[in-house]
Amino acid sequence: MDHTILFRVRYSETDQMGTFYNSRALEWFECGRTELLRAMGLPYAEMERRGVFLPLVEAHVEYRGRARYDDLLKMTSRGTLVGKARVRIDVEIVQAEGGAPVARGYTVHAITGPAGKPIRPPPWLAQLFGVKRPPSPLRGEASS
Amino acid sequence: MDHTILFRVRYSETDQMGTFYNSRALEWFECGRTELLRAMGLPYAEMERRGVFLPLVEAHVEYRGRARYDDLLKMTSRGTLVGKARVRIDVEIVQAEGGAPVARGYTVHAITGPAGKPIRPPPWLAQLFGVKRPPSPLRGEASS
Amino acid sequence: MDHTILFRVRYSETDQMGTFYNSRALEWFECGRTELLRAMGLPYAEMERRGVFLPLVEAHVEYRGRARYDDLLKMTSRGTLVGKARVRIDVEIVQAEGGAPVARGYTVHAITGPAGKPIRPPPWLAQLFGVKRPPSPLRGEASS
Amino acid sequence: MDHTILFRVRYSETDQMGTFYNSRALEWFECGRTELLRAMGLPYAEMERRGVFLPLVEAHVEYRGRARYDDLLKMTSRGTLVGKARVRIDVEIVQAEGGAPVARGYTVHAITGPAGKPIRPPPWLAQLFGVKRPPSPLRGEASS
Repeated sequence: MDHTILFRVRYSETDQMGTFYNSRALEWFECGRTELLRAMGLPYAEMERRGVFLPLVEAHVEYRGRARYDDLLKMTSRGTLVGKARVRIDVEIVQAEGGAPVARGYTVHAITGPAGKPIRPPPWLAQLFGVKRPPSPLRGEASS
Repeated sequence: MDHTILFRVRYSETDQMGTFYNSRALEWFECGRTELLRAMGLPYAEMERRGVFLPLVEAHVEYRGRARYDDLLKMTSRGTLVGKARVRIDVEIVQAEGGAPVARGYTVHAITGPAGKPIRPPPWLAQLFGVKRPPSPLRGEASS
Repeated sequence: MDHTILFRVRYSETDQMGTFYNSRALEWFECGRTELLRAMGLPYAEMERRGVFLPLVEAHVEYRGRARYDDLLKMTSRGTLVGKARVRIDVEIVQAEGGAPVARGYTVHAITGPAGKPIRPPPWLAQLFGVKRPPSPLRGEASS
Repeated sequence: MDHTILFRVRYSETDQMGTFYNSRALEWFECGRTELLRAMGLPYAEMERRGVFLPLVEAHVEYRGRARYDDLLKMTSRGTLVGKARVRIDVEIVQAEGGAPVARGYTVHAITGPAGKPIRPPPWLAQLFGVKRPPSPLRGEASS
Protein backbone atom coordinates (compact mmCIF):
# COMPACT_ATOMS: atom_id res chain seq x y z
CA MET A 1 0.00 0.00 0.00
CA ASP A 2 1.17 3.49 -0.91
CA HIS A 3 0.21 6.66 0.84
CA THR A 4 0.92 10.22 -0.23
CA ILE A 5 0.82 13.42 1.78
CA LEU A 6 1.52 17.07 1.08
CA PHE A 7 3.44 19.26 3.50
CA ARG A 8 5.41 22.49 3.55
CA VAL A 9 9.03 23.10 4.55
CA ARG A 10 9.13 24.95 7.87
CA TYR A 11 11.51 27.85 8.44
CA SER A 12 12.95 25.89 11.36
CA GLU A 13 13.89 23.15 8.91
CA THR A 14 16.12 25.35 6.74
CA ASP A 15 19.79 25.97 7.35
CA GLN A 16 22.22 28.63 6.26
CA MET A 17 22.58 27.10 2.79
CA GLY A 18 18.95 28.13 2.23
CA THR A 19 17.63 24.61 1.74
CA PHE A 20 16.38 22.08 4.32
CA TYR A 21 18.91 20.76 6.82
CA ASN A 22 19.76 17.13 6.07
CA SER A 23 18.36 15.50 9.24
CA ARG A 24 14.90 16.96 8.58
CA ALA A 25 14.43 14.32 5.89
CA LEU A 26 14.25 11.67 8.62
CA GLU A 27 11.70 13.73 10.54
CA TRP A 28 9.63 14.01 7.37
CA PHE A 29 9.94 10.26 6.79
CA GLU A 30 8.38 9.82 10.23
CA CYS A 31 5.42 12.02 9.27
CA GLY A 32 4.98 9.88 6.18
CA ARG A 33 4.99 6.65 8.26
CA THR A 34 2.51 8.11 10.70
CA GLU A 35 0.04 8.97 7.96
CA LEU A 36 0.68 5.69 6.13
CA LEU A 37 -0.24 3.70 9.24
CA ARG A 38 -3.28 5.88 9.89
CA ALA A 39 -4.42 5.33 6.30
CA MET A 40 -3.90 1.60 6.79
CA GLY A 41 -6.32 1.79 9.70
CA LEU A 42 -3.93 1.41 12.61
CA PRO A 43 -2.39 4.67 13.83
CA TYR A 44 1.06 4.19 15.31
CA ALA A 45 -0.06 5.74 18.63
CA GLU A 46 -2.64 2.95 18.85
CA MET A 47 -0.01 0.38 17.94
CA GLU A 48 2.16 1.56 20.84
CA ARG A 49 -0.87 1.33 23.13
CA ARG A 50 -1.13 -2.31 22.06
CA GLY A 51 2.47 -2.74 23.16
CA VAL A 52 4.05 -2.94 19.72
CA PHE A 53 6.90 -0.61 18.85
CA LEU A 54 8.79 -0.05 15.60
CA PRO A 55 12.20 1.40 16.55
CA LEU A 56 14.57 2.20 13.70
CA VAL A 57 17.46 -0.11 13.02
CA GLU A 58 18.56 1.53 9.80
CA ALA A 59 17.92 4.70 7.80
CA HIS A 60 19.06 5.78 4.39
CA VAL A 61 18.58 9.06 2.55
CA GLU A 62 19.58 10.26 -0.89
CA TYR A 63 19.42 14.00 -1.31
CA ARG A 64 18.31 14.73 -4.84
CA GLY A 65 17.36 18.38 -5.02
CA ARG A 66 16.72 21.56 -3.14
CA ALA A 67 13.62 22.42 -1.17
CA ARG A 68 13.26 25.87 0.33
CA TYR A 69 11.18 27.38 3.09
CA ASP A 70 7.47 27.09 2.38
CA ASP A 71 7.92 24.87 -0.68
CA LEU A 72 5.03 22.46 -0.96
CA LEU A 73 6.36 18.90 -1.05
CA LYS A 74 4.75 15.59 -1.87
CA MET A 75 5.86 12.50 0.02
CA THR A 76 4.90 8.95 -0.82
CA SER A 77 5.50 6.13 1.66
CA ARG A 78 5.12 2.40 1.26
CA GLY A 79 5.55 -0.27 3.89
CA THR A 80 6.57 -3.88 3.58
CA LEU A 81 7.36 -6.66 5.99
CA VAL A 82 10.90 -7.91 5.44
CA GLY A 83 12.31 -11.11 6.81
CA LYS A 84 10.62 -12.42 9.91
CA ALA A 85 10.51 -9.38 12.11
CA ARG A 86 11.31 -6.21 10.27
CA VAL A 87 9.26 -3.51 8.62
CA ARG A 88 10.72 -1.45 5.82
CA ILE A 89 9.27 1.88 4.74
CA ASP A 90 10.30 3.31 1.37
CA VAL A 91 9.86 7.02 0.92
CA GLU A 92 10.06 9.46 -1.96
CA ILE A 93 9.79 13.23 -1.70
CA VAL A 94 9.31 15.53 -4.69
CA GLN A 95 8.23 19.11 -5.26
CA ALA A 96 4.43 19.16 -5.43
CA GLU A 97 4.58 21.54 -8.36
CA GLY A 98 6.63 20.20 -11.20
CA GLY A 99 7.69 17.00 -9.47
CA ALA A 100 11.39 17.84 -9.15
CA PRO A 101 13.04 15.22 -6.93
CA VAL A 102 13.99 16.28 -3.39
CA ALA A 103 14.91 13.15 -1.45
CA ARG A 104 14.27 9.46 -1.29
CA GLY A 105 15.27 6.69 1.03
CA TYR A 106 14.03 4.14 3.46
CA THR A 107 13.90 3.19 7.10
CA VAL A 108 14.06 -0.32 8.51
CA HIS A 109 12.30 -1.01 11.80
CA ALA A 110 12.52 -3.76 14.36
CA ILE A 111 9.27 -4.99 15.85
CA THR A 112 9.56 -4.92 19.61
CA GLY A 113 7.66 -4.86 22.87
CA PRO A 114 7.72 -1.85 25.21
CA ALA A 115 11.06 -2.88 26.69
CA GLY A 116 12.73 -2.93 23.29
CA LYS A 117 12.93 -6.72 22.91
CA PRO A 118 12.15 -8.09 19.44
CA ILE A 119 8.80 -9.85 19.17
CA ARG A 120 7.20 -11.84 16.40
CA PRO A 121 4.88 -9.57 14.45
CA PRO A 122 1.33 -10.03 15.73
CA PRO A 123 -1.06 -11.35 13.06
CA TRP A 124 -2.77 -7.96 12.70
CA LEU A 125 0.59 -6.36 11.92
CA ALA A 126 1.50 -8.95 9.31
CA GLN A 127 -1.95 -8.54 7.83
CA LEU A 128 -1.57 -4.77 7.84
CA PHE A 129 1.45 -4.98 5.60
CA GLY A 130 -0.33 -7.20 3.19
CA VAL A 131 1.27 -10.48 4.11
CA LYS A 132 -1.11 -13.38 3.79
CA ARG A 133 -0.61 -17.07 4.36
CA PRO A 134 0.47 -18.57 1.00
CA PRO A 135 -2.97 -18.02 -0.41
CA SER A 136 -3.15 -17.95 -4.14
CA PRO A 137 -0.53 -19.37 -6.45
CA LEU A 138 -0.80 -16.34 -8.70
CA ARG A 139 0.03 -13.65 -6.20
CA GLY A 140 2.71 -11.35 -7.50
CA GLU A 141 4.29 -8.40 -5.80
CA ALA A 142 2.53 -7.73 -2.53
CA SER A 143 4.17 -4.44 -1.86
CA SER A 144 1.85 -1.95 -3.45
CA MET B 1 25.13 29.77 42.23
CA ASP B 2 26.23 30.65 38.71
CA HIS B 3 27.59 28.25 36.17
CA THR B 4 29.16 29.05 32.82
CA ILE B 5 29.76 26.81 29.83
CA LEU B 6 31.19 27.25 26.35
CA PHE B 7 29.62 25.69 23.28
CA ARG B 8 29.56 26.13 19.53
CA VAL B 9 26.62 26.79 17.22
CA ARG B 10 25.85 23.66 15.20
CA TYR B 11 25.08 23.85 11.48
CA SER B 12 21.75 22.18 12.25
CA GLU B 13 20.92 25.14 14.48
CA THR B 14 21.21 27.77 11.75
CA ASP B 15 18.41 28.84 9.45
CA GLN B 16 18.26 30.52 6.08
CA MET B 17 18.90 33.95 7.64
CA GLY B 18 22.37 32.67 8.46
CA THR B 19 22.03 32.96 12.22
CA PHE B 20 20.65 30.47 14.77
CA TYR B 21 16.97 29.57 14.50
CA ASN B 22 15.03 31.10 17.38
CA SER B 23 13.88 27.88 19.13
CA ARG B 24 17.50 26.72 19.51
CA ALA B 25 17.90 29.23 22.35
CA LEU B 26 15.57 27.09 24.47
CA GLU B 27 17.58 23.96 23.63
CA TRP B 28 20.74 25.78 24.67
CA PHE B 29 19.08 26.94 27.90
CA GLU B 30 18.47 23.25 28.64
CA CYS B 31 22.18 22.46 28.16
CA GLY B 32 22.96 25.27 30.58
CA ARG B 33 20.54 23.87 33.19
CA THR B 34 21.96 20.39 32.78
CA GLU B 35 25.50 21.58 33.46
CA LEU B 36 24.38 23.92 36.24
CA LEU B 37 22.75 21.02 38.10
CA ARG B 38 25.76 18.78 37.52
CA ALA B 39 28.03 21.51 38.90
CA MET B 40 25.71 21.81 41.91
CA GLY B 41 26.34 18.11 42.54
CA LEU B 42 23.00 16.67 41.46
CA PRO B 43 22.73 15.86 37.74
CA TYR B 44 19.18 16.20 36.43
CA ALA B 45 19.21 12.57 35.23
CA GLU B 46 19.83 11.56 38.86
CA MET B 47 17.08 13.90 40.01
CA GLU B 48 14.61 12.18 37.68
CA ARG B 49 15.76 8.81 39.03
CA ARG B 50 14.82 10.13 42.46
CA GLY B 51 11.36 10.83 41.07
CA VAL B 52 11.66 14.60 40.90
CA PHE B 53 10.93 16.36 37.60
CA LEU B 54 11.23 20.00 36.58
CA PRO B 55 8.84 20.51 33.64
CA LEU B 56 8.70 23.99 32.14
CA VAL B 57 5.77 26.20 32.92
CA GLU B 58 7.15 29.32 31.31
CA ALA B 59 9.98 30.39 29.03
CA HIS B 60 11.17 33.78 27.90
CA VAL B 61 13.88 34.72 25.42
CA GLU B 62 15.24 38.06 24.26
CA TYR B 63 17.25 37.86 21.07
CA ARG B 64 20.06 40.39 21.32
CA GLY B 65 22.52 39.63 18.56
CA ARG B 66 23.57 37.26 15.82
CA ALA B 67 25.42 34.00 16.30
CA ARG B 68 26.58 32.07 13.28
CA TYR B 69 27.58 28.48 12.61
CA ASP B 70 30.62 27.46 14.64
CA ASP B 71 30.66 30.67 16.72
CA LEU B 72 31.90 29.93 20.21
CA LEU B 73 29.33 31.08 22.74
CA LYS B 74 29.43 31.52 26.48
CA MET B 75 26.30 30.75 28.49
CA THR B 76 25.81 31.54 32.17
CA SER B 77 22.94 29.98 34.10
CA ARG B 78 21.72 30.67 37.60
CA GLY B 79 18.98 28.88 39.49
CA THR B 80 16.70 30.11 42.24
CA LEU B 81 13.73 28.68 44.08
CA VAL B 82 10.72 30.94 43.61
CA GLY B 83 7.55 30.80 45.65
CA LYS B 84 6.82 27.46 47.24
CA ALA B 85 7.30 25.07 44.39
CA ARG B 86 8.96 26.65 41.41
CA VAL B 87 12.50 26.81 40.15
CA ARG B 88 13.60 29.69 37.95
CA ILE B 89 16.72 29.55 35.82
CA ASP B 90 18.11 32.80 34.41
CA VAL B 91 20.36 32.49 31.40
CA GLU B 92 22.63 34.80 29.46
CA ILE B 93 24.42 33.94 26.23
CA VAL B 94 27.20 36.05 24.74
CA GLN B 95 29.91 35.61 22.12
CA ALA B 96 32.90 34.02 23.85
CA GLU B 97 35.24 36.35 22.00
CA GLY B 98 34.35 39.98 22.54
CA GLY B 99 31.30 39.35 24.67
CA ALA B 100 28.71 40.65 22.21
CA PRO B 101 25.24 39.78 23.52
CA VAL B 102 23.39 36.93 21.79
CA ALA B 103 20.36 36.07 23.92
CA ARG B 104 19.11 36.13 27.45
CA GLY B 105 16.02 34.90 29.19
CA TYR B 106 14.69 32.53 31.76
CA THR B 107 12.69 29.39 32.27
CA VAL B 108 10.31 28.68 35.16
CA HIS B 109 9.85 25.07 36.22
CA ALA B 110 7.25 23.29 38.27
CA ILE B 111 8.51 20.65 40.70
CA THR B 112 6.59 17.45 40.10
CA GLY B 113 6.58 13.70 40.57
CA PRO B 114 6.82 11.26 37.66
CA ALA B 115 3.11 11.63 36.87
CA GLY B 116 3.39 15.38 36.51
CA LYS B 117 1.70 16.30 39.79
CA PRO B 118 3.27 19.17 41.73
CA ILE B 119 5.15 18.14 44.85
CA ARG B 120 6.76 20.12 47.64
CA PRO B 121 10.45 20.51 46.91
CA PRO B 122 12.37 17.84 48.81
CA PRO B 123 14.83 19.27 51.34
CA TRP B 124 17.83 18.36 49.18
CA LEU B 125 16.34 20.37 46.31
CA ALA B 126 15.66 23.42 48.44
CA GLN B 127 19.16 23.12 49.81
CA LEU B 128 20.57 22.79 46.33
CA PHE B 129 19.19 26.16 45.33
CA GLY B 130 20.62 27.80 48.38
CA VAL B 131 17.50 28.18 50.44
CA LYS B 132 18.15 27.99 54.13
CA ARG B 133 15.77 28.05 57.03
CA PRO B 134 15.26 31.70 58.10
CA PRO B 135 18.78 31.86 59.43
CA SER B 136 19.91 35.40 59.69
CA PRO B 137 17.59 38.37 59.96
CA LEU B 138 19.72 40.26 57.47
CA ARG B 139 19.44 37.95 54.52
CA GLY B 140 18.88 39.94 51.34
CA GLU B 141 18.88 38.62 47.84
CA ALA B 142 18.92 34.86 47.83
CA SER B 143 19.60 34.50 44.18
CA SER B 144 23.30 33.94 43.99
CA MET C 1 -7.02 39.27 12.05
CA ASP C 2 -7.05 35.81 13.57
CA HIS C 3 -6.05 32.62 11.83
CA THR C 4 -6.46 29.07 13.06
CA ILE C 5 -4.76 25.89 11.89
CA LEU C 6 -4.85 22.27 12.91
CA PHE C 7 -1.71 20.16 13.17
CA ARG C 8 -0.47 16.98 14.83
CA VAL C 9 2.40 16.48 17.27
CA ARG C 10 5.25 14.69 15.51
CA TYR C 11 7.14 11.86 17.20
CA SER C 12 10.32 13.91 16.73
CA GLU C 13 8.74 16.63 18.86
CA THR C 14 8.24 14.46 21.94
CA ASP C 15 10.80 13.96 24.67
CA GLN C 16 11.35 11.33 27.33
CA MET C 17 8.62 12.82 29.53
CA GLY C 18 6.17 11.70 26.85
CA THR C 19 4.92 15.16 25.98
CA PHE C 20 6.30 17.70 23.48
CA TYR C 21 9.75 19.12 24.15
CA ASN C 22 9.51 22.75 25.21
CA SER C 23 11.31 24.39 22.27
CA ARG C 24 8.85 22.84 19.79
CA ALA C 25 6.28 25.43 20.87
CA LEU C 26 8.39 28.10 19.16
CA GLU C 27 8.59 26.00 15.99
CA TRP C 28 4.82 25.63 16.05
CA PHE C 29 4.41 29.37 16.59
CA GLU C 30 6.39 29.83 13.36
CA CYS C 31 3.98 27.53 11.47
CA GLY C 32 1.11 29.62 12.81
CA ARG C 33 2.76 32.87 11.62
CA THR C 34 3.43 31.38 8.21
CA GLU C 35 -0.20 30.42 7.71
CA LEU C 36 -1.45 33.68 9.23
CA LEU C 37 0.55 35.70 6.69
CA ARG C 38 -0.55 33.45 3.83
CA ALA C 39 -4.19 33.92 4.91
CA MET C 40 -3.58 37.68 5.00
CA GLY C 41 -2.52 37.44 1.39
CA LEU C 42 1.21 37.93 1.72
CA PRO C 43 3.17 34.74 2.34
CA TYR C 44 6.33 35.33 4.37
CA ALA C 45 8.48 33.80 1.62
CA GLU C 46 7.14 36.52 -0.69
CA MET C 47 7.78 39.13 1.97
CA GLU C 48 11.44 38.08 2.14
CA ARG C 49 11.63 38.26 -1.64
CA ARG C 50 10.49 41.87 -1.31
CA GLY C 51 13.41 42.42 1.04
CA VAL C 52 11.44 42.60 4.27
CA PHE C 53 12.40 40.31 7.17
CA LEU C 54 10.79 39.77 10.55
CA PRO C 55 13.52 38.43 12.87
CA LEU C 56 12.51 37.65 16.44
CA VAL C 57 13.50 40.03 19.17
CA GLU C 58 11.49 38.37 21.92
CA ALA C 59 9.57 35.17 22.55
CA HIS C 60 7.41 34.07 25.44
CA VAL C 61 5.71 30.75 26.09
CA GLU C 62 3.45 29.53 28.88
CA TYR C 63 3.13 25.76 29.03
CA ARG C 64 -0.41 24.98 30.11
CA GLY C 65 -1.00 21.30 29.45
CA ARG C 66 0.29 18.11 27.94
CA ALA C 67 0.21 17.20 24.27
CA ARG C 68 1.34 13.78 23.19
CA TYR C 69 2.52 12.25 19.93
CA ASP C 70 -0.17 12.41 17.25
CA ASP C 71 -2.51 14.61 19.31
CA LEU C 72 -4.42 16.94 17.03
CA LEU C 73 -3.85 20.53 18.14
CA LYS C 74 -5.53 23.78 17.22
CA MET C 75 -3.41 26.93 17.04
CA THR C 76 -4.76 30.45 16.67
CA SER C 77 -2.41 33.30 15.73
CA ARG C 78 -3.07 37.01 15.61
CA GLY C 79 -0.71 39.74 14.43
CA THR C 80 -0.51 43.38 15.40
CA LEU C 81 1.86 46.22 14.67
CA VAL C 82 3.33 47.55 17.90
CA GLY C 83 5.18 50.82 18.26
CA LYS C 84 6.80 52.11 15.10
CA ALA C 85 8.61 49.10 13.81
CA ARG C 86 7.61 45.90 15.55
CA VAL C 87 5.18 43.14 14.81
CA ARG C 88 3.73 41.09 17.62
CA ILE C 89 2.11 37.72 17.08
CA ASP C 90 -0.05 36.26 19.85
CA VAL C 91 -0.57 32.53 19.77
CA GLU C 92 -2.79 30.06 21.59
CA ILE C 93 -2.61 26.28 21.26
CA VAL C 94 -5.29 23.94 22.57
CA GLN C 95 -6.27 20.32 22.05
CA ALA C 96 -8.52 20.16 19.00
CA GLU C 97 -10.80 17.74 20.78
CA GLY C 98 -12.05 19.11 24.07
CA GLY C 99 -10.10 22.35 23.92
CA ALA C 100 -7.77 21.62 26.83
CA PRO C 101 -5.07 24.30 26.93
CA VAL C 102 -1.58 23.32 25.72
CA ALA C 103 0.45 26.52 25.37
CA ARG C 104 0.13 30.19 24.70
CA GLY C 105 2.53 33.02 24.18
CA TYR C 106 3.79 35.56 21.76
CA THR C 107 6.70 36.55 19.60
CA VAL C 108 7.86 40.10 18.89
CA HIS C 109 9.58 40.77 15.59
CA ALA C 110 11.75 43.58 14.30
CA ILE C 111 11.12 44.73 10.75
CA THR C 112 14.40 44.73 8.88
CA GLY C 113 16.03 44.65 5.47
CA PRO C 114 18.08 41.70 4.24
CA ALA C 115 21.15 42.84 6.18
CA GLY C 116 19.27 42.87 9.47
CA LYS C 117 18.96 46.66 9.79
CA PRO C 118 15.61 47.97 11.06
CA ILE C 119 13.48 49.64 8.43
CA ARG C 120 10.21 51.54 8.63
CA PRO C 121 7.36 49.18 7.84
CA PRO C 122 6.42 49.55 4.18
CA PRO C 123 2.82 50.76 3.68
CA TRP C 124 1.66 47.32 2.51
CA LEU C 125 2.95 45.81 5.75
CA ALA C 126 1.26 48.39 7.94
CA GLN C 127 -1.91 47.87 5.93
CA LEU C 128 -1.59 44.13 6.29
CA PHE C 129 -1.74 44.37 10.06
CA GLY C 130 -4.77 46.58 9.93
CA VAL C 131 -3.15 49.89 10.79
CA LYS C 132 -4.91 52.83 9.24
CA ARG C 133 -3.84 56.43 9.05
CA PRO C 134 -5.04 58.32 12.18
CA PRO C 135 -8.64 58.05 11.16
CA SER C 136 -10.81 58.65 14.14
CA PRO C 137 -9.79 60.67 17.18
CA LEU C 138 -11.28 58.04 19.44
CA ARG C 139 -9.16 55.09 18.37
CA GLY C 140 -8.15 53.08 21.39
CA GLU C 141 -6.43 49.74 21.50
CA ALA C 142 -5.47 48.61 18.03
CA SER C 143 -4.61 45.11 19.01
CA SER C 144 -7.70 43.16 18.17
CA MET D 1 42.77 10.76 9.60
CA ASP D 2 40.49 9.86 12.48
CA HIS D 3 39.10 12.28 15.00
CA THR D 4 37.23 11.48 18.19
CA ILE D 5 35.03 13.69 20.32
CA LEU D 6 32.98 13.23 23.47
CA PHE D 7 29.51 14.71 23.85
CA ARG D 8 26.38 14.22 25.92
CA VAL D 9 22.83 13.44 24.80
CA ARG D 10 20.65 16.52 25.24
CA TYR D 11 17.15 16.26 26.70
CA SER D 12 15.86 17.84 23.47
CA GLU D 13 17.33 14.90 21.59
CA THR D 14 15.31 12.25 23.40
CA ASP D 15 11.87 11.08 22.37
CA GLN D 16 9.04 9.32 24.17
CA MET D 17 10.77 5.95 23.88
CA GLY D 18 13.38 7.34 26.27
CA THR D 19 16.31 7.08 23.90
CA PHE D 20 17.56 9.57 21.27
CA TYR D 21 15.25 10.36 18.37
CA ASN D 22 16.59 8.83 15.15
CA SER D 23 17.32 12.04 13.19
CA ARG D 24 19.63 13.29 15.95
CA ALA D 25 22.26 10.85 14.73
CA LEU D 26 22.65 12.95 11.58
CA GLU D 27 23.00 16.12 13.67
CA TRP D 28 25.69 14.40 15.72
CA PHE D 29 27.45 13.25 12.55
CA GLU D 30 27.63 16.93 11.59
CA CYS D 31 29.28 17.81 14.92
CA GLY D 32 31.80 15.06 14.25
CA ARG D 33 32.58 16.43 10.75
CA THR D 34 32.94 19.94 12.11
CA GLU D 35 35.52 18.85 14.67
CA LEU D 36 37.25 16.52 12.22
CA LEU D 37 37.80 19.39 9.79
CA ARG D 38 38.95 21.71 12.58
CA ALA D 39 41.43 19.06 13.72
CA MET D 40 42.62 18.74 10.12
CA GLY D 41 43.39 22.43 10.22
CA LEU D 42 40.59 23.78 8.05
CA PRO D 43 37.35 24.54 9.89
CA TYR D 44 34.30 24.11 7.70
CA ALA D 45 33.21 27.71 8.35
CA GLU D 46 36.54 28.78 6.82
CA MET D 47 36.00 26.38 3.93
CA GLU D 48 32.65 28.02 3.17
CA ARG D 49 34.33 31.43 3.31
CA ARG D 50 36.69 30.13 0.62
CA GLY D 51 33.63 29.32 -1.47
CA VAL D 52 33.74 25.54 -1.06
CA PHE D 53 30.65 23.73 0.21
CA LEU D 54 30.07 20.09 1.08
CA PRO D 55 26.31 19.47 0.77
CA LEU D 56 25.08 15.97 1.54
CA VAL D 57 24.14 13.70 -1.29
CA GLU D 58 23.65 10.59 0.80
CA ALA D 59 23.37 9.57 4.44
CA HIS D 60 23.20 6.21 6.10
CA VAL D 61 22.69 5.29 9.75
CA GLU D 62 22.58 1.98 11.58
CA TYR D 63 21.07 2.19 15.03
CA ARG D 64 22.92 -0.24 17.25
CA GLY D 65 21.99 0.53 20.83
CA ARG D 66 20.27 2.88 23.20
CA ALA D 67 21.62 6.19 24.43
CA ARG D 68 19.70 8.11 27.04
CA TYR D 69 19.60 11.70 28.19
CA ASP D 70 22.98 12.84 29.55
CA ASP D 71 24.80 9.67 28.48
CA LEU D 72 28.36 10.49 27.54
CA LEU D 73 29.04 9.30 23.99
CA LYS D 74 32.21 8.92 21.98
CA MET D 75 32.10 9.64 18.26
CA THR D 76 34.88 8.89 15.81
CA SER D 77 34.83 10.40 12.31
CA ARG D 78 37.07 9.71 9.35
CA GLY D 79 37.05 11.45 6.00
CA THR D 80 38.08 10.21 2.60
CA LEU D 81 37.91 11.56 -0.91
CA VAL D 82 35.90 9.20 -3.11
CA GLY D 83 35.79 9.31 -6.86
CA LYS D 84 36.63 12.64 -8.40
CA ALA D 85 34.48 15.00 -6.47
CA ARG D 86 32.99 13.43 -3.41
CA VAL D 87 33.92 13.35 0.24
CA ARG D 88 32.79 10.49 2.42
CA ILE D 89 32.75 10.69 6.21
CA ASP D 90 32.46 7.46 8.20
CA VAL D 91 31.21 7.77 11.73
CA GLU D 92 30.95 5.51 14.73
CA ILE D 93 29.27 6.36 18.02
CA VAL D 94 29.64 4.32 21.19
CA GLN D 95 28.98 4.79 24.90
CA ALA D 96 32.05 6.49 26.38
CA GLU D 97 31.87 4.18 29.38
CA GLY D 98 31.93 0.54 28.40
CA GLY D 99 31.97 1.14 24.66
CA ALA D 100 28.51 -0.27 23.92
CA PRO D 101 27.63 0.53 20.30
CA VAL D 102 25.08 3.28 19.69
CA ALA D 103 25.14 4.11 15.98
CA ARG D 104 27.34 4.06 12.95
CA GLY D 105 27.02 5.23 9.42
CA TYR D 106 28.34 7.60 6.83
CA THR D 107 27.56 10.69 4.86
CA VAL D 108 28.60 11.37 1.26
CA HIS D 109 29.13 14.98 0.22
CA ALA D 110 29.33 16.72 -3.11
CA ILE D 111 31.96 19.41 -3.47
CA THR D 112 30.32 22.55 -4.77
CA GLY D 113 30.61 26.30 -5.10
CA PRO D 114 28.28 28.70 -3.31
CA ALA D 115 25.56 28.24 -5.93
CA GLY D 116 25.51 24.49 -5.46
CA LYS D 117 27.30 23.56 -8.67
CA PRO D 118 29.86 20.76 -8.41
CA ILE D 119 33.47 21.88 -8.62
CA ARG D 120 36.73 19.99 -8.82
CA PRO D 121 38.20 19.68 -5.35
CA PRO D 122 40.79 22.41 -4.86
CA PRO D 123 44.31 21.05 -4.22
CA TRP D 124 44.17 22.01 -0.52
CA LEU D 125 41.02 19.95 -0.13
CA ALA D 126 42.47 16.90 -1.85
CA GLN D 127 45.56 17.31 0.29
CA LEU D 128 43.46 17.64 3.41
CA PHE D 129 41.96 14.21 2.86
CA GLY D 130 45.32 12.65 2.38
CA VAL D 131 45.20 12.01 -1.34
CA LYS D 132 48.61 11.79 -2.90
CA ARG D 133 49.64 11.45 -6.49
CA PRO D 134 49.80 7.74 -7.47
CA PRO D 135 52.76 7.05 -5.23
CA SER D 136 53.31 3.38 -4.86
CA PRO D 137 52.11 0.75 -7.32
CA LEU D 138 50.98 -1.45 -4.46
CA ARG D 139 48.57 0.92 -2.85
CA GLY D 140 45.43 -0.90 -1.86
CA GLU D 141 42.61 0.58 0.12
CA ALA D 142 43.01 4.33 0.30
CA SER D 143 40.40 4.84 2.92
CA SER D 144 42.38 5.06 6.10
